[in-house]
Amino acid sequence: MAGSPTFDADFRARFRDLLGWRRDVRKFRRNPLPDGTLERLIQLACLAPSVGLSEPWRFVVVRDVARRDKIRSCFKICNAAALNSHDTNRASLYARLKLEGLEEAPCHVAVFADRSTAQGHGLGRLTMPEMIDYSAVLAIHTLWLAARAEGIGVGWLSILEPVEVAAILDTPPDWTFIGYLCIGYPIENCDTPALEREGWESRRPSSETVFYR
Amino acid sequence: MAGSPTFDADFRARFRDLLGWRRDVRKFRRNPLPDGTLERLIQLACLAPSVGLSEPWRFVVVRDVARRDKIRSCFKICNAAALNSHDTNRASLYARLKLEGLEEAPCHVAVFADRSTAQGHGLGRLTMPEMIDYSAVLAIHTLWLAARAEGIGVGWLSILEPVEVAAILDTPPDWTFIGYLCIGYPIENCDTPALEREGWESRRPSSETVFYR
Repeated sequence: MAGSPTFDADFRARFRDLLGWRRDVRKFRRNPLPDGTLERLIQLACLAPSVGLSEPWRFVVVRDVARRDKIRSCFKICNAAALNSHDTNRASLYARLKLEGLEEAPCHVAVFADRSTAQGHGLGRLTMPEMIDYSAVLAIHTLWLAARAEGIGVGWLSILEPVEVAAILDTPPDWTFIGYLCIGYPIENCDTPALEREGWESRRPSSETVFYR
Repeated sequence: MAGSPTFDADFRARFRDLLGWRRDVRKFRRNPLPDGTLERLIQLACLAPSVGLSEPWRFVVVRDVARRDKIRSCFKICNAAALNSHDTNRASLYARLKLEGLEEAPCHVAVFADRSTAQGHGLGRLTMPEMIDYSAVLAIHTLWLAARAEGIGVGWLSILEPVEVAAILDTPPDWTFIGYLCIGYPIENCDTPALEREGWESRRPSSETVFYR
């Protein structure tokens, strides 16, 4: 088709850099994003694939200080339970990890998926209704990469109780909580995951994840 | 950090093109991917974020003709059920859609998530075990974009019965089926989703998906 872009070796090398230097960011500077930045990133996120073109992602921008405080309390409770789930050695390592940037990050976005949406007319989700949730995950990832391309960091927090988050944010009952994003300028950039640097876990060769049938 | 890449306006514009011209491809040429291409794409996919660095994605490359035939039969049964779920007008439109490229695509990859993996030591998934599935979704999306950057198309098929797919591919009981990918060179490139061109559904303004709290 006329106008169809091709991507050269230089772009592909830079894209690989983008993938390799995208991090789950937990250490943010406190300065805000310029006006309109978040909306622009969400616009890009909406270019993500969605099952049946259902676009079921719902972005809840959390600005209210009281609600942010409640989210942080929710995290603290869930994180204490997670700490207690480990044996002594692991627990002391876990306690040293910084797993979120809720206090410093200027921008908070909770992402939900709307399984009740009529958009898409149910296509592709009869046997796999979870495709709606997966579509919202694809949008998060798109936003994440687009943010990194602008030097903006994203941290995805899952150490939260979904039912509590929905209550704190007063969202419709049909929405499924997918993830809570902290967004802002990172203190540092790195091509190694924080959990690897801190000795929690290390990456394995990709070949170990491939099977043939 | 030294060596940290920055991404300029030109890259960001090209990256936006990549997002905008990534399609769910259903019409493939039959010629195979060059040797090693799929493995390279999977290597890039493994740069995706994963909860607790668990890397729970499992890529099952389906080469066996008999297994491919069974997958196609599974799709036909599920697709007939989907057709019957629509009223007469929608059903006649549905019947005209080409929703998969199982016969033409040279490369088939079923993606699973291993919720039983010890990698990551459970971090980030105590309250949200579904984060393991989401991590596999992130890997699929990474592969999808990396493929498009090389002019290779990906189609994600969800009109399948997960239990059947697992049986056909003889996968471990702990693995969750996430999606079935058809991969190959596309017949055409386009910046408009096929479902929009064919009148099934249209995209909405991204602002409709944003809420403030």
